Amino acid sequence: MHQLVLLPQSEYRERIATIQSLMHNAALNAMLITDNASKFHICGRVFAGQIYIPAQGEPIFFVRRPVGLEGDGVVYIRKPEQMPETIGALNMPEAIGLELDLLPYSSAQRFMAIFPASEAKNCSPLLRQSRAVKTSWEIGRLKESAARQERVYRLIPKIYRPGMTDVELQIEIERQLRLEGCLGQFRISGDSMELFMGSLLVGDNADNPTPYDFAMGGAGISASLPGGANGTLITPGTSAMIDMNGDFTGYMTDCTRTFALGTLPDMAIRAHQCSIDICRAIEKTATPGTPAKELYELAEQMARKAGLHEYFMGHHQKAGFIGHGVGIEINELPVIAPRSRDILAKGNVIALEPKFVIPRVGALGIENTYAVTTNGLEQLTHAPEQIIYFTN
Amino acid sequence: MHQLVLLPQSEYRERIATIQSLMHNAALNAMLITDNASKFHICGRVFAGQIYIPAQGEPIFFVRRPVGLEGDGVVYIRKPEQMPETIGALNMPEAIGLELDLLPYSSAQRFMAIFPASEAKNCSPLLRQSRAVKTSWEIGRLKESAARQERVYRLIPKIYRPGMTDVELQIEIERQLRLEGCLGQFRISGDSMELFMGSLLVGDNADNPTPYDFAMGGAGISASLPGGANGTLITPGTSAMIDMNGDFTGYMTDCTRTFALGTLPDMAIRAHQCSIDICRAIEKTATPGTPAKELYELAEQMARKAGLHEYFMGHHQKAGFIGHGVGIEINELPVIAPRSRDILAKGNVIALEPKFVIPRVGALGIENTYAVTTNGLEQLTHAPEQIIYFTN
Repeated sequence: MHQLVLLPQSEYRERIATIQSLMHNAALNAMLITDNASKFHICGRVFAGQIYIPAQGEPIFFVRRPVGLEGDGVVYIRKPEQMPETIGALNMPEAIGLELDLLPYSSAQRFMAIFPASEAKNCSPLLRQSRAVKTSWEIGRLKESAARQERVYRLIPKIYRPGMTDVELQIEIERQLRLEGCLGQFRISGDSMELFMGSLLVGDNADNPTPYDFAMGGAGISASLPGGANGTLITPGTSAMIDMNGDFTGYMTDCTRTFALGTLPDMAIRAHQCSIDICRAIEKTATPGTPAKELYELAEQMARKAGLHEYFMGHHQKAGFIGHGVGIEINELPVIAPRSRDILAKGNVIALEPKFVIPRVGALGIENTYAVTTNGLEQLTHAPEQIIYFTN
Repeated sequence: MHQLVLLPQSEYRERIATIQSLMHNAALNAMLITDNASKFHICGRVFAGQIYIPAQGEPIFFVRRPVGLEGDGVVYIRKPEQMPETIGALNMPEAIGLELDLLPYSSAQRFMAIFPASEAKNCSPLLRQSRAVKTSWEIGRLKESAARQERVYRLIPKIYRPGMTDVELQIEIERQLRLEGCLGQFRISGDSMELFMGSLLVGDNADNPTPYDFAMGGAGISASLPGGANGTLITPGTSAMIDMNGDFTGYMTDCTRTFALGTLPDMAIRAHQCSIDICRAIEKTATPGTPAKELYELAEQMARKAGLHEYFMGHHQKAGFIGHGVGIEINELPVIAPRSRDILAKGNVIALEPKFVIPRVGALGIENTYAVTTNGLEQLTHAPEQIIYFTN
């Protein structure tokens, strides 16, 4: 037998308390958790089943699989229709939160039929909000991911061999990441965006547009998974922007570094420096209470002032943001975008990625993950930021 | 500019005709395609947007991203609310199919509001049905995946080095798969089951239960992604069951082979032979028209007769099926399970995986992917089936 809840007890208590407080504000009497990332956030484990969280009192863990879990509130069921037996007729909630931004329509209808007298409300925004503020324990997990990701990034110049394509270099980096303990999984909320192990963009492939809300492009090697490396040979005068999977602990950091072969044109070098300058400027500005959109505006102004606006956040197709929350998933809150209403809060963890695409050179710039502290941004990703030239 | 439809024209025509014929039977006037796998099936490409298929006439491709697509019926929109402008007030469907088994509740409601006078019906079952029967072109794609997967499986004995753990061996196989062109993506319908690049199970880790509907278990290396290799050392007397990603073309084959170090106990060797015998017996039985559940019953009877029923399809936790359809996703129709109502049809592609978990040894057995032809099953996966002993 194994304990279902894998978080430290104080950590688990804190998360339930935060969620119950948000439920109180949203006038929810209960919430039903169905998404894997949400389950992992609440109890540190993914299982088949549902977590029922009442506004007061203890959660019930309805488990279908795996066999062998135990602990307070663990109840094995074969199908969700058995939940009311345990909850009890007198305790059925007036208003129940369901994860309606993620739960398929058919499944949502099934759950609504199990709670016929309850008003179903969408608790996805509430859960996203609760996950946007990380505890110090979670920031510890992110620092662990960042440290391991950095170790691999520092190996990249040694991994490179002359004559490599983007795909070949990416495969060797994937291997090093995995040997360092990377889980491989690239968790994205929702299932419309798909990516395998991150993105490595060489030369003009960076300007190939993708269908997804990612900051940079790439054609990929198959129309079934459009994005990232496409088999481009790494040739002198081109850049290789490397933005690979930082999920080592269930919490992922997001870090991009730019490498190059031979000599890059002056504009590319200026673009890269502009990206670093934007990060430094935002680091000086951002504190709890800063509107996220102001960070976007600052970045855009600096790119414009540098005469690089045409290449900022893409060229043929542009991304509409320069940063995003990150944690269990790659696309958490807050969103650093022109129309974002998010306000930075202590405990947010954000990735900033002011990037450029320079025709005939490739993608330039960096990305760092930061924790928002009372003293401002604490940088979690520490690999060297200057363009790193392949010399072997 | 790039053509949106990437399928050969005859192939594209055939798929639209099949879907429109199924729509006719289901009394749907139109269907709105929103899922990535469905889009790839219909046009050979993933994009951000929707495909609107009327019961008669030509599809409309509503594209948000990427920029630069063209072709018959391609219409760029910023948001789905713009669709009715193009469809036209007079052509709004009476009954519209939405992918309600996959589409999140909130998104479904948004689409329903765009078609306020239309009755929304669930077209997920219809699309699953249309995808269950592969064209000969699709079977060609699957044969290509199978051939490349086989090349990597044949390298595995050379990849193994003494002292390796399951994770270390898996990482080197992942690398070979990727070098051979594997996309990495392991497409599963729905988002509740998660797996990275497949499963490699050594020794008693095969008996660790997972939350998922996979045939075999494994604890994994993180509670955020429970399943598969967990760092077990490969020691003499244990088996290594290898069931790794066969997605090289957007169409994936599913193939399992069992490797071992040292000498296995007789029962394990018998279990492996029983798995091969079950495959041979099903190959002789299955034709278009065969109920899928009969194949399950045949497999279970053979395992029982061999005295291996206790270990069949798992030991502590058992899987409820011995096979499944496979193609763009790993969990397509038909399902080879005791209560399945599916009937084999010409063009189905199925993976059969009668497997055993023997305590203190590990997982035994094979898995092959087959096309259902008028003459019976055509085996697509051809790597050697006997237990392969690591000798280096």
